[in-house]
Order: sequence, then C-alpha cells, then structure tokens
Amino acid sequence: MKNYTSVHDVADVAALVNEALEIKKAPFAHKELGAGKTLGLIFLNPSLRTRLSTQKAALNLGMNVMVMNLDKEGWALEIQEGVVMDGTTVEHIKEAAAVMGQYCDILGLRSFPKLQDKEEDYSEDILNKFIKYAGIPILSLESATRHPLQSLADLVTITEKAPAGKRPKVVLTWAPHVKALPQAVPNSFAEWMCKADVDFVITHPEGYELEGSFTDGATIEYDQDKALAEADFVYVKNWSSFQDYGKVLSDGKGWMMTPEKLKVTNDAKVMHCLPVRRGLELSNEILDSPSSIVIEEAGNRVYAAQAVLKQMLESL
Amino acid sequence: MKNYTSVHDVADVAALVNEALEIKKAPFAHKELGAGKTLGLIFLNPSLRTRLSTQKAALNLGMNVMVMNLDKEGWALEIQEGVVMDGTTVEHIKEAAAVMGQYCDILGLRSFPKLQDKEEDYSEDILNKFIKYAGIPILSLESATRHPLQSLADLVTITEKAPAGKRPKVVLTWAPHVKALPQAVPNSFAEWMCKADVDFVITHPEGYELEGSFTDGATIEYDQDKALAEADFVYVKNWSSFQDYGKVLSDGKGWMMTPEKLKVTNDAKVMHCLPVRRGLELSNEILDSPSSIVIEEAGNRVYAAQAVLKQMLESL
Amino acid sequence: MKNYTSVHDVADVAALVNEALEIKKAPFAHKELGAGKTLGLIFLNPSLRTRLSTQKAALNLGMNVMVMNLDKEGWALEIQEGVVMDGTTVEHIKEAAAVMGQYCDILGLRSFPKLQDKEEDYSEDILNKFIKYAGIPILSLESATRHPLQSLADLVTITEKAPAGKRPKVVLTWAPHVKALPQAVPNSFAEWMCKADVDFVITHPEGYELEGSFTDGATIEYDQDKALAEADFVYVKNWSSFQDYGKVLSDGKGWMMTPEKLKVTNDAKVMHCLPVRRGLELSNEILDSPSSIVIEEAGNRVYAAQAVLKQMLESL
Repeated sequence: MKNYTSVHDVADVAALVNEALEIKKAPFAHKELGAGKTLGLIFLNPSLRTRLSTQKAALNLGMNVMVMNLDKEGWALEIQEGVVMDGTTVEHIKEAAAVMGQYCDILGLRSFPKLQDKEEDYSEDILNKFIKYAGIPILSLESATRHPLQSLADLVTITEKAPAGKRPKVVLTWAPHVKALPQAVPNSFAEWMCKADVDFVITHPEGYELEGSFTDGATIEYDQDKALAEADFVYVKNWSSFQDYGKVLSDGKGWMMTPEKLKVTNDAKVMHCLPVRRGLELSNEILDSPSSIVIEEAGNRVYAAQAVLKQMLESL
Repeated sequence: MKNYTSVHDVADVAALVNEALEIKKAPFAHKELGAGKTLGLIFLNPSLRTRLSTQKAALNLGMNVMVMNLDKEGWALEIQEGVVMDGTTVEHIKEAAAVMGQYCDILGLRSFPKLQDKEEDYSEDILNKFIKYAGIPILSLESATRHPLQSLADLVTITEKAPAGKRPKVVLTWAPHVKALPQAVPNSFAEWMCKADVDFVITHPEGYELEGSFTDGATIEYDQDKALAEADFVYVKNWSSFQDYGKVLSDGKGWMMTPEKLKVTNDAKVMHCLPVRRGLELSNEILDSPSSIVIEEAGNRVYAAQAVLKQMLESL
Repeated sequence: MKNYTSVHDVADVAALVNEALEIKKAPFAHKELGAGKTLGLIFLNPSLRTRLSTQKAALNLGMNVMVMNLDKEGWALEIQEGVVMDGTTVEHIKEAAAVMGQYCDILGLRSFPKLQDKEEDYSEDILNKFIKYAGIPILSLESATRHPLQSLADLVTITEKAPAGKRPKVVLTWAPHVKALPQAVPNSFAEWMCKADVDFVITHPEGYELEGSFTDGATIEYDQDKALAEADFVYVKNWSSFQDYGKVLSDGKGWMMTPEKLKVTNDAKVMHCLPVRRGLELSNEILDSPSSIVIEEAGNRVYAAQAVLKQMLESL
C-alpha cells in the first residue's frame, strides 16, 4: 500500500482487518520493521485518539515519530497556485509538503474541512497536494471527507464482536449536536461498510443525505425505529448537511440514542468514533452500560493504524 | 506501587528515597524494565520541570513517552456526571481517561486547582476520575492539592545534603507573590516532611494555615525569625490562603527570604520548587550564592520520577 | 566542538562540510554515538525545518529528544539581572537554563530578535545567558543575529552542486517582503561564505547594508543585474534594515527574483532558506523549475545538524 486515504487504497479489506486482529494478539511481532524509519504526524486540527493511537502504532513497529502541530508550532499554509503571497500565509503547501517529505519516510496528515464551500472541501485539495508534493507516502489522519483509520478500526471492532454464524446488521444513525460537524466519519464509515460483509442501513432526518458515492449499496431509511429493528451494531454520529452544505438543519430532537430505542435491536452493540456529547448524541445510560463498545473501539485504533503502517512500510 | 498521587501511596518512604539515590548513581541500570511500555503525559496546565524530568526518567527506563497538552492540542473536558453536553466541553472525562488508558501503560496527569471552590479542589475530582476511569495506573504530575514528585525530589535532596550525625531541622516558610498560587506544593511538602526523619517547622503569616491533615506532626510558628533559628534547610514557597480560599491576604512585605534572615540558621541550604520570583519570594543574593540548592533540587526530579516509575513498572 | 552558535565555533569548516556529506551517504553510521544522551530543543519561536531536521538528526545518532515550546507549554522568561519579578515573567533565565541543563546533555535554543533595539538584539543576550547558565553545550537553532545550522546546510548544498573545476560565484540577493524580518539568515550566510572557497557578492537596495563584521571579504554591489552576472548560485532572502533598525524601507519593487533576471547568470541554482513568499521574494516560475534547489537545500538541514551534533557528542 502506497498512500492510505480511503478504502480504495486497500487491495483486500478483509485481509487488512485480519492483519489488525493478528497484530492485536502480538503488537510487538514486527518491532524491527520500522527501524530507522520516521513517521511525521502533521496536525492542522486538534486530535486525541488519532494522535496517540497512531504514535503508539508506529512505536510498536519500531519507528521514530515526529509530531508537529503545524497550525500552532508553525504557520499558516498557502494552498492556491500562482498566488502572490503578500498576505498572512507564510509558506506554500508545495514547499511545506516537499520539505517534510525530506525528513520523513511516511507522513500522516490531519486536515478538517472548513464546511463553507462543498466543492473546495470535496476536492480534498490539501490532502491531494500533500500527496502530490511530499514525495513520500501519505497517511490520512482524517481529511475533509474521510477518516479511514477510524473506519478500519470500526470494521475491526465489528468483526471482533459480530454474532457468530450470521451476517451482522449495522445501522449508522444520525444524532443531534450543537455544532456543524464534517461528514468525514459517516462518509468513510459508509464507504467501508458497503465493502464489508454486513447488512448496512443508514438512518437520518431528511436533508442529511450523504454524498451518493459513499453510500452506494447502503439502504437509506428515514424512520429511525424501522432502521434499528434487529440491528447488531448501532453506529451513532452527528454530521452537518451535505446538500445545504455544512448547515445544521434543526435541533434533531428525538434522534438521540437511548436504551428505549435499542429495544427493537438484536441487543445491539453501540459504537461512536468519539468524542461524544453525552446526553445529546447518546444517552449517559447507554454509554455507562455494557451495550457501549466505544472504548474498545477506540482501543482498536492502535491495531488498525499498525496494520496500515505495516503495509505501508512493506511497500517502501 | 499502583497509583502515585501522594505519600500515602508509598509503602516505605525511606526505601523509595534510597532507590532514587541509587538510580542517581546509575541512571541506566534498569533500562530494559520499560521496554515496550508507554507512559502518557497529559498536561491540563503548563509545565517545564515536571514535563522534562518525567520524560527523561521514563526514557532512562526504556519506556516510550507520548506527551499531550490536552488543553491546547485537544479540547475541553466535561467533568460533571449526568450532564447534557450541549455547551463548550467536547469530551467527557469518562471517555477521555478510558481511551488514554487504552493507549498507555501508565498515565501521568497534571491538573491545577481553579482556586475558586475549596471543596471542589480538595475533592481532587479530576485526578480521582482519571484513576477511576483510565483503567491503568495514574502518576500525579501535580494535582489540585499535592505535588508528590516534587516532594519526593525534595526529600531526596534533603537526605543527600543533610549534616552528618544529626536530625535535620527543616523550615517551610511562606513567601510573597503577586498571584494567588495553589497550596499543592506546601501541602505535599508538609505531608512528606511529617513522614520523614526531620524536625519540621512551618512559618507563615496568620491566615495562611494549611489544611490540618497535611501538617499533622509539624510545628506551626508565626514568627519567621524564631522558626528559622538553627534551621538546616529553608524551603521557600508562596501559597494562597486555605481558609479564605484562594485569596492573597496581604502583600507579605518582610517575608521574602534574604541573607540577613539566614544568619540565625545553621548555615541553611535554601530550597524552592521553582519557578521562583526573584526579588519577591527569594532574594537574588541567595539564589546566586552557594546557600541555594534549587538547581540540584530540580535535577533530583529525574531520579525521584525514575524511582516512582520503576516501582510502578514493577507492579504492572 | 563545545557550543555551536556561529562559524567561529567551527575549527575546520571544510572538514565539517565533508562530514555532513559523508553522513548523507550513511545516516545511521554513528547510531550508537548518542545512546543514553538527551537533546533538548527549546523553541521560543515557531519552527518547521529546524524542529524536524534537528530532531531527525539526533534520532539518527541514537539520541533521545525532548521538545519544548517554552512560550506555549511553559511561561515567559525574565532576562534582566537583579530585577524584582513582580510582573508577568514567571521564571528567570538563570533558573530555566540551569534546570534544563540538568535534564539534557545538549540544549538547542531558538530565539528570534524583537527588532526593536539593535544593541539588545546584537548582544545575543538570551543565547549568551543560556550558554552561561545551562552548564551544558548549546546548539543555536537560530538566534537574534545568526542561523548557523541553516548556513552549514547552505554550504553543504553549494559544495554538492558546484560546477566542477571552478571556484563558484555565489550571490546573496535581497528580496521584497511584507514583514520586517531578522538579519540572522543573511548575516550568517555571509559569515560562512566569507570563510568558504567561493567568490561572494551581496546585492541589496541602499539602506539594507548588513553589519560589517558579517560581510568582511564580500563584495557589495547595489546593482542587482551586475551582481548576478555569471553567478553559479543565487541565494534569495529578505531582511529588514540594520541601520534604520528593523525597518522595511520600501516595497522593494523590482527586486523579486525572476527567470528574466537569471539569464545573466551561469545557469545559476537558486537557493532560499524557506519559508519563501512565492510571487513576492521569488517567482513561482523559478520555484517550480529545475533552477530551484530549495528542497534539496532543506533536506541537507538533517545532515548539517547531524554533523554538528556528532562533533558536539564527541566533545562531551
């Protein structure tokens, strides 16, 4: 694997999931593979799980890790071509990416969308320019439209916890939030579920339809109760509107996941990428109950990242 | 040792001090002990000595270290139970602690008091919730009411520098400051001195009495000159009022430590946890003289942290 | 080599350049040299290249690295002697430097000039106080008046790329900028070029003369076109006025480096320390053409830093 920015970079999804599960059993089995190799982690936005789990994964593989909060420890990047840089941007992405490519063997990049211009965000301009100019493999730590390390960890978790002898039903359900959030996690989760051996349903209020290419193969069901029926996994997540781009359309009252709603499921396990707003997206009762597997899901971020880094190191 | 948050977590104080002194002679003697183990250092507040010395201690033990400025690189944590998170806090401490517990073997936490609500601060709510939810051992990097790594380094320093053949007299003396500072360092220092083989006196203006449980066994002397008589060690530190909680009661004129005041001591060594306000808490003359041992004291932070981490690693 | 703050710390410049070029061929040849040694990197100002390349260099030598953004993760330092610290500075440089000296074997420091008081900046007060009080070797990561790791990388790059069988002509040419920038990079570059086996010319508008001690041996030519004639290397850089200290004297129109201007050169390679303002200091056309060697120049920062750290480690 050269770059890792979406499920489309993965030759064999099931094999990658299995690799992560093998690594979970023996995290130090490949601790010589990364010797002398450097992973740079570039954050243009805050991070907790991705920051720590990816660092941990790289250390488990024997890599050196250099972390850079480019926005806080560095300066603002210019993205546009052919511009006269007489404003507030200090360095062009062309130079910044190429220079970091000189110092690292693999470069991880986190860059959120601005949620102001759909075309700009969905062009994945920053991620693509890093790929173009860094000259080394790029690992997405969440981009404008996808969060593929999260999605792999999600699929690893579903594979681990799936009821034996049946194709699991997985429901992605929209949840209320006070802020306008990116579509990256649900886009990416949908894209992976559509490639996985699961029965996949998405439910959300009208107006929150995701961009169609991510949900090809999924069932869209606007009635949350119907969607949840017999679910084995319920993935709770807020996102802002794609059509009315970046907007919060209503307060979403009634969409918070509660124990009451779970009754129609097949004793479903509840997932969330975290951070989660308790009492708003997901009830305190669920998060404090055995139905919630959000912590194990977060724990699997290490093994997902390690499987990806292993394949990237093997391709260097 | 499982958690390290106060002297009460230490089975044998003298043995821990000796362990630190042994480590100082051979810092790399246990460099395989931490192989494959990860120390997470979580800062909710700024740090220099604690940050660097704890990192160094862990590296000396062969551990991997991941540092996270949660306030700056992450987001605000919610502490309250059962709340609807529709405000500015982004993640609940329950999830944050549990997730960091997935990525680390030991978690260090720095969390200052707000100095607004005595009960809230003295409940050590944040520290205790990390202990409750992280699922892994917690190392205090200074909490609302204590700074146990500092106190151990202080006792190591006193043990090293004590005059031969006598029980040393140690005086903790309040000093002026322009800001309202926590009681964590003096609380903790008092608690440790009361467990150590020293003659321990605390002096401060009226109104600055520390919470009684920390000073049980100490002599309180409001007359600074009387307190200093024949002292072998003078520990200078400002703190805000406990009774009139978090307040600066007066400008403290006359309480700054000076060479003049040291004359009644037994050629006392002067200590301070640093950072120190020169010319306000402690005179420039003392800090620039051989009486001051503040730098060696800071240097001992490494060996104190290493002794603690060694015992924590041995209990994993 | 004890400290590394300028070319004057280097016993044999050509030998150091050769050492860097040898290290470039085999970066891990000395990976045991730094075992058990700690490099502290202290940033009082932002950094990308210096931060990552110096970290990488130290890791290649097997050192541990601790990075500290003192301004953001710590607090403001007091620099003045004998002051009463009742204001906003939290710790005196005397203690801060000495304490960091306790935790590290070599200390790197980045500290920019304020560009308000020429004498203050050119006294290199902060750097010199770190040297005086840290008690361990100091590595400049760019100080008020010099950037010696950059200059060494520049000379390494020129040595690598110089046309065979001729003494290369190197031209340092001033470029426009919207901000007032330090003289550190041009001072340092000039100082190194004057020690190197090159024909060295500096060109800039009147009023931008550098302090004479840095340019002793250089030809100053106010006519940019004349200066560029037959140049083998063109080093583009903005700086603020030294005479009218820290001021931007004009918009510098006409001084931006363009392909048109390069026509009189000997097919010159174009260099810049980065970050570069495209379309203002240097044209997009040049930066996107093979004439530009700015990325390789930045890449050489690793080997320059590694050669310096190697010599510093050998002197410990």
